[in-house]
Amino acid sequence: MKSFKVALAQFSPHIGNIEANVQKMIEQANQAKKQNADIIVFPELSTVGYPAEDLLLRPSISKRTAQAFEQLHTVKDIVMVFGFVNTTEDGQRYNSAAVMKDGQVLGVYNKQNLPNYSVFDEKRYFNEGHQHLVFEYLGHKFGVLICEDVWSLQTVQQLAQLNVESVLVLNASPYEVGKPQHRIATLQELARQINIHLVYTNQVGGQDDLIFDGSSFVINNTGDVVLRAESYKEQVYFIDYEIENKAYKAVTTAPALDTMAEIYQALVMATRDYVERSGFPGVILGLSGGIDSALTLAIAVDAIGAEKVQAVMMPYTYTSQISVEDAAEQAKRMGVTFGIAEIHPIVNSFMQTLFPFFGNSPADTTEENLQARARGTLLMGLSNKFGNLVLSTGNKSELSVGYCTLYGDMVGGFAVLKDVYKTIVFELAKYRNSLSETPVIPERVITRPPSAELRPDQKDQDSLPAYDVLDAILYAYIEEDQSQDDIIAKGFDKDVVEKIIKLVDRNEYKRRQGAIGPRITSRAFSRERRYPIVNGWKAGV
Amino acid sequence: MKSFKVALAQFSPHIGNIEANVQKMIEQANQAKKQNADIIVFPELSTVGYPAEDLLLRPSISKRTAQAFEQLHTVKDIVMVFGFVNTTEDGQRYNSAAVMKDGQVLGVYNKQNLPNYSVFDEKRYFNEGHQHLVFEYLGHKFGVLICEDVWSLQTVQQLAQLNVESVLVLNASPYEVGKPQHRIATLQELARQINIHLVYTNQVGGQDDLIFDGSSFVINNTGDVVLRAESYKEQVYFIDYEIENKAYKAVTTAPALDTMAEIYQALVMATRDYVERSGFPGVILGLSGGIDSALTLAIAVDAIGAEKVQAVMMPYTYTSQISVEDAAEQAKRMGVTFGIAEIHPIVNSFMQTLFPFFGNSPADTTEENLQARARGTLLMGLSNKFGNLVLSTGNKSELSVGYCTLYGDMVGGFAVLKDVYKTIVFELAKYRNSLSETPVIPERVITRPPSAELRPDQKDQDSLPAYDVLDAILYAYIEEDQSQDDIIAKGFDKDVVEKIIKLVDRNEYKRRQGAIGPRITSRAFSRERRYPIVNGWKAGV
Repeated sequence: MKSFKVALAQFSPHIGNIEANVQKMIEQANQAKKQNADIIVFPELSTVGYPAEDLLLRPSISKRTAQAFEQLHTVKDIVMVFGFVNTTEDGQRYNSAAVMKDGQVLGVYNKQNLPNYSVFDEKRYFNEGHQHLVFEYLGHKFGVLICEDVWSLQTVQQLAQLNVESVLVLNASPYEVGKPQHRIATLQELARQINIHLVYTNQVGGQDDLIFDGSSFVINNTGDVVLRAESYKEQVYFIDYEIENKAYKAVTTAPALDTMAEIYQALVMATRDYVERSGFPGVILGLSGGIDSALTLAIAVDAIGAEKVQAVMMPYTYTSQISVEDAAEQAKRMGVTFGIAEIHPIVNSFMQTLFPFFGNSPADTTEENLQARARGTLLMGLSNKFGNLVLSTGNKSELSVGYCTLYGDMVGGFAVLKDVYKTIVFELAKYRNSLSETPVIPERVITRPPSAELRPDQKDQDSLPAYDVLDAILYAYIEEDQSQDDIIAKGFDKDVVEKIIKLVDRNEYKRRQGAIGPRITSRAFSRERRYPIVNGWKAGV
Repeated sequence: MKSFKVALAQFSPHIGNIEANVQKMIEQANQAKKQNADIIVFPELSTVGYPAEDLLLRPSISKRTAQAFEQLHTVKDIVMVFGFVNTTEDGQRYNSAAVMKDGQVLGVYNKQNLPNYSVFDEKRYFNEGHQHLVFEYLGHKFGVLICEDVWSLQTVQQLAQLNVESVLVLNASPYEVGKPQHRIATLQELARQINIHLVYTNQVGGQDDLIFDGSSFVINNTGDVVLRAESYKEQVYFIDYEIENKAYKAVTTAPALDTMAEIYQALVMATRDYVERSGFPGVILGLSGGIDSALTLAIAVDAIGAEKVQAVMMPYTYTSQISVEDAAEQAKRMGVTFGIAEIHPIVNSFMQTLFPFFGNSPADTTEENLQARARGTLLMGLSNKFGNLVLSTGNKSELSVGYCTLYGDMVGGFAVLKDVYKTIVFELAKYRNSLSETPVIPERVITRPPSAELRPDQKDQDSLPAYDVLDAILYAYIEEDQSQDDIIAKGFDKDVVEKIIKLVDRNEYKRRQGAIGPRITSRAFSRERRYPIVNGWKAGV
């Protein structure tokens, strides 16, 4: 028995790019060796990345994984614990961890608890393992678990009965608000209860709509948090196990982030990873003078730098002078390319072409949508010509009730605020402004009443309840699965609740065609709330 | 022991509308009683319909199901076997069948085999059952299975060992080409092997992207098919069990359809059910003079009637006179409203607005996309004003390689040909023309070389291989999961294969924002081929 050093590789994989991921794993292992680490622990499925979805079903996954093992054989003098897709000879597939040293596989663990709820579909891909893995190294007894396993008390207790001292937990645990703290609080209790040290390594990085925050940690069997990695940062962390204390020695740990900082940085990382890993040279977005596009611009600049961000203002008759001024002012403060493209001639040409069909039918949302679609087509034209990704700027509140135009303001490849309610948009804007002496978002953008400016003197609150009321109803219905009757019983106006729920239900078709965007809540629209479009479910009980 | 009569309710549920579904079940049960039926068998999950997706997770599902049972209690003098969501007191959820007579539940069966592959996600919603249900009625021993159960030899053999004479199989088995014949051929063999009569009732109707063909049947233990229901038709079928022969007595059965008839009728039903169940008064589509929109128009008319279909031709500089003539001619032959909207002024206004940004950069696909988006916006304007659903007209071949414009020709709520390869589009057009003396699609539309008409003298084959080659490569890559190397080894040109696969891989983002459309293959783009957008998987092995 002796002291030893563990490296936690808070690793950001490129999904599906096994060769590149393994190359980076080797570099991180060599870096750990230089720091005299004895063991390095990678996240769940680190070779292929999480979630690789149906790439896991491609027949060559086993051949590619075998090649990955060949590459990893070259690493010497350090124990590597990493995740991989384990295809057995009888064709079964497991979500597995390998323990490898000097090219020898010392043990393989197959994940026992496969989540198949929320954003997870692991039973589509994997079989369940039924056996624990325990290995002794440097006189210390290690167990291995993978993500969901550590949340099953039965699984953890079985492992504890094998006299394990430290459990290495490989994770790809997606972010949602408060999750970093929640994981630690729950597992502190567990470590104490079962008297085991926990080394928890999490994937970091954005993958499509999912954010992996990293936030890896080590908890001693006393429940003390002795290492806490920074969130949203790819880095290898180190910690020493001291034989004299039979415990890991605390290192300087990252402080927990305030909620708004936590969300803001999550959105920044998600945007950066999407843009860069999709190979776009930059982004373009429509700046309206409103708060959604203002916040999206700030996030984009923080993600990839002002020089890669282009903003376009596309005014029409109903666009107020204030909006034009504020948009220009923010673009100036943030140092991004800014252009103005009037859409009058385009809208007029549509109206003239449609006149023979429309006749004298009264104006309605059709004409509003034409404005939005003229703008969407302009942005896509600029995107097609110069290669920048269009960021769409809508928030979760408006996407919920369909206050957005399909093929209009919904155009884009990545919807930065897709899972951010409007009330949180305000908070995030204030948070971002608090970071610099000169607020990057002009104060007026935050304080004036929100408007889509698609009709004269239009205000969002003409047809919607105040955003705090709207968001409370949406939260109850979407996040908490409360029924219409339950929500009304909480004291909200009956007509308002009925209207809002009807709008949410009816706009599934719009959401289905919207861009993906980063998930920050426990019930995001995309892979997590799978509702049929044709749907006769009646609101009520 | 005596003779008896079984009713097979080939039932088309409205997903989620439990009250309406149950009302219809009661009507069908009463109709069966009038025909002196002793038992009526409904499809899988008939109360809520299949697939109800995350509606199954709403807390009130148990309360709603209890109400459904109350309604069904009113049916007397006939045994009803129907599907429902069984929520037990400990909060477990099962995909179940109830046997009910005179308001008494005689037995409940929980599905044992839960498919969680392809389009299925049943492990997201249900627990597995572990017990068989056998009931005796009129001296005959019945077993009950639900869909996937009958494809598990182990499950079926266990049931057979309980001396069951007839198995009632409740199904929601989605259509794909050849599936109706495949089910029967496989289960004929099974019935003979285990010496059991099979009564197979399938859901019918379109639900979002899934088609349920019905095609219910009865197979005697000799392997003889004694009842074969029509595909795509909601109807109650009857069959007599004759005690003297210990077998079901053959009734006139529907002939198997030719492949093109089978596909065509599937698309017609899917389109009708989507339009009607979404509550649209009619549909609108852009008619280009090309074969895709021509076929889509024919399907739309056959689905909902010419008087509910509006076609619009939107010519530009590159639109040939032939196209305008053929579009007008087809519209006339089919008796639909037809309008022409020139898009020159719109495209010009976009070009002028974009000129300060574009400068003298050479024309590329940007300008082509502007044409497509001008058309898309016009269609959406007409849809918004008059309420008709936009049908999009793209086929699977072009969606695979991204030869379509997001927010342009991809606009629409339902993409009728989304899962139909171009080579099949040609076959279907010929098939539809063969049905009437005057072909509804002008011959020239079928025979001239396909073109998007977005550039002067453009032909699809300028930048794509011939469609039979393209479709063969796509089929191997998408449907058969073959690798790039495998496909090249089959003799296809290396450069062509590499280009096609790269295009398929790169265009996931486009497909993700496309409209849903009916699934007819074994690997449709939507819920069945779940690929990450950010994806570093390298083509090759």
